[in-house]
Order: sequence, then C-alpha cells, then structure tokens
Amino acid sequence: MEETEPFDNLTALEELLQIHFHDRALLQRAVTHHSCCPETAVQDSYDTLEFLGDAIISAHVVEHIYRSFPEASEGEMTALKSEVVSRRILARVGQQLGLFPFIRINLSILRTFNERSRDSLCTDVLEALVGAIHIDQGTAAAQEFVTRTILPMVEHINSQTLETNPKGHLQKIVLQRSRSLPRYRVLEQSGSQNDRIFLVGVFEHETLLGLGKASSIKEAGRIAARQALEQLPKKKDLS
Amino acid sequence: MEETEPFDNLTALEELLQIHFHDRALLQRAVTHHSCCPETAVQDSYDTLEFLGDAIISAHVVEHIYRSFPEASEGEMTALKSEVVSRRILARVGQQLGLFPFIRINLSILRTFNERSRDSLCTDVLEALVGAIHIDQGTAAAQEFVTRTILPMVEHINSQTLETNPKGHLQKIVLQRSRSLPRYRVLEQSGSQNDRIFLVGVFEHETLLGLGKASSIKEAGRIAARQALEQLPKKKDLS
Repeated sequence: MEETEPFDNLTALEELLQIHFHDRALLQRAVTHHSCCPETAVQDSYDTLEFLGDAIISAHVVEHIYRSFPEASEGEMTALKSEVVSRRILARVGQQLGLFPFIRINLSILRTFNERSRDSLCTDVLEALVGAIHIDQGTAAAQEFVTRTILPMVEHINSQTLETNPKGHLQKIVLQRSRSLPRYRVLEQSGSQNDRIFLVGVFEHETLLGLGKASSIKEAGRIAARQALEQLPKKKDLS
Repeated sequence: MEETEPFDNLTALEELLQIHFHDRALLQRAVTHHSCCPETAVQDSYDTLEFLGDAIISAHVVEHIYRSFPEASEGEMTALKSEVVSRRILARVGQQLGLFPFIRINLSILRTFNERSRDSLCTDVLEALVGAIHIDQGTAAAQEFVTRTILPMVEHINSQTLETNPKGHLQKIVLQRSRSLPRYRVLEQSGSQNDRIFLVGVFEHETLLGLGKASSIKEAGRIAARQALEQLPKKKDLS
C-alpha cells in the first residue's frame, strides 16, 4: 500500500501546518502510531499528545461557541460542541488538511485497514498535533491553529442545522426568547388547481417574522422560517 | 434556612477569589442558579458559564497531568483526569473555597435540598466561576486560578490512587466499563518453598488485562493491576 507510506518528511509537514517546531521530535511523535514502537509507545507514539490535544480542542471550540452564540442555551451549545469535536468531523478536518500521508504506522500489525481506519488515524493525529503545537509553541499558537483549521466547522455545522431544518431551528430560538411556538399561517393561495402557490407567514405572537412562497404549504413554511432566521439580529462578538 | 441565604456581596466574593472583576454582572451571573431567573435563565444564570468553565478546567487539568507525569500512559492520564474533574472532587474544592454562601438560589422551587444539592451547586458554581474569570480576565488569569484551586487535587489524587492502590483504581475502571469486577488468578508458582515466585493475571471476564510476578500473591496482583492500567485501551467517542 504505497499511499500509506509516510513521507517521513517533517519539513513538508511543517509547511502544511504553517508552523516551525522548536522540538521536531515532538512533531515526529505526534504523527507516530503506537504500532511503530510497541515497546516504547508511551514515549514515542502520539497517544498522550492526542489526549492533551483533545482537551485543548474542546476548550477552544467551547469558548468559540460561547462567544459566537451568546443567546444559545447550554443544551444547544452542548449539542453543537459534541458535533464539532466528534471523531467524524475531526477526521474530515484532518483529511482535508492532508495529514494522512504523514502518519507513521506499521500496517502489518493492523488486522484491517480501510477508510474508517484512515479517518480514525486522521482524527488522532489532528488532536495530537494540536497537543504538540500547544507544548512546543504555546497556548496562543495552538489557539491560532485550532481557529484556522477546526473552528470554521462551528459555523458550518451551525448553518447546516439552519439549512436542513430551518423550522426546528427557528422554533428553538423563538421558544427560548418568548416561550411561545412560532405559528405558520397560510396568508394567500393563488394559481390554478394543479398549480397552486401558497404564501405562508411565520409569526411570533402577532409579529410577522418571515414569508415564504411555494407550491406546497410545507415548503412555503420552510422558506418562511429560513427568511425569519436570516433576519434575526446577528449576535457576534468574537474577541 | 438562613445559611443558604446569599450574602449577595460580590466584593466579599472577589476577595475570596482574589480576583477583581471588570464586569461584575458576569460574576453575579456565575453564582446565580436558574431558579432565581426562570424567565431569563439563558442570559442571567450560570448554565452556559458552567459549560465553558468545565471545558477550560479539563484542558488545564489535562495539560498539568501531561506535564507532570511524562511517563504515564494515556490510560493512566485519562483515569487521573476523570477523577480530578469529577463532580465529587470539584464539589470538595468548591466547598473548601467557601463558595456556598455566595450562591444565589431560589430554594422554594427546589423539591429537596440536602448535602448533595449543596455539593452539586458548589461544583456548578466553581466551573461557572472559571468560565467567568476566563472571559473577564483572560486565559492566563483563569489558568492561575485553576492552578491555585484545582490542580493541587491532581497530586493529591495521584498519590492516593496510582501508586498506592492500583487494584482499586483498576476496579473502578473495569466496573465502569463492563459492570464486572476484575478477577485475579494465580497462573503459575515457581521457586522453592521459601522463595516462591507467583505469576498472577488480572482478567476482565475472560480477557487478560495484565500480568505480575512477585514473591507474594498480593504484590503480584498489584503489579498485574499496574500493568493493566498502563495498557488500558483508549476511550474513543462514537464516530
């Protein structure tokens, strides 16, 4: 499996990360699976760096969510954080960064190796690299790396929830701020029997939040919810 | 219940924390249970600050463990961290700090109130205070506060468990993950009558977790437990 051979090229990895390490042994360790060093895994594999990086990533993600969504409840923050730091999402970040070719692993001792193993390794190594950057470069550098590579997923995942389920998303927000449910009303029907167009409005109490027009009431409601969400005051205060 | 009345004295609390807040509303919020503000809990109670503080405490505890025990395995680090950031231990820290009298809570809406509620509130508020300090005073101040109040527990717990009681430590972990107790079996005896060597294995169900060899069964068991702890598989969240 040629493609899984490590380049063993720390300089290329440093370029990829845009970080020059003081202690390159630490960088090497961050990409070394314990299968490469069964006898000295504690010292030479990424396991403990991954443990460290995992906690650091969580703290930065949580802080970012706390600052970006000041009106969110603790439950909403928890749900968003869990998704962002899930192994699935971190694997995607690691794969997109292009970490895989740099990972040092002894394939012969692994029973199976498939796309999931590849994802899993990318998650591990992304976490370990954050740990290594934190130790080698300090808190601020690790935060900068996490901000550059992982935090964009917060907005991405949040907007996905927003796009795929605008009504659920709007309901959460309205419930939270006014303890009422948003109400959808058909305001107008037009068109012929087989070509109806519905105009739906979504209301918080008596206040119109958004309008949607579509050939089904359901879709018009989704559009109305999306419009309502787009017009919500954006609460951002990143510092 | 006079003793549960809050002093409502932020200055005294600042003295206790040895921190002077820029934004005292944030400090007030960090000690306010949502029972005091059911209508505006998301904005005015400590819930989201607690969520933030929890992640920050974990990161500092993990970093401290990583730096203090460079020879520990990821399994040992995980076990130690879980214990330090457990609600039981954080409650003890909060109680010892003397946080309880400062907590604002509406007792009339709580069904029961006992020593456990008191512990639980102290845990919450300790976490929320770390979140508030992090936001109000910055990363370094929060780290300093955690170093002063929580990190001493790392050494305390480590000396209690890892070194003195590997069997108890292993039992906790095995109980937690498989609801069974680890079993110790003498696998081999060798040596002469007065110079016996015992080989003891520790098992989780039928899986061998570790081996130990010593001149007493008890000591061989301890060594087996320590080996098992070193080789603990890593916890992974679902992907």
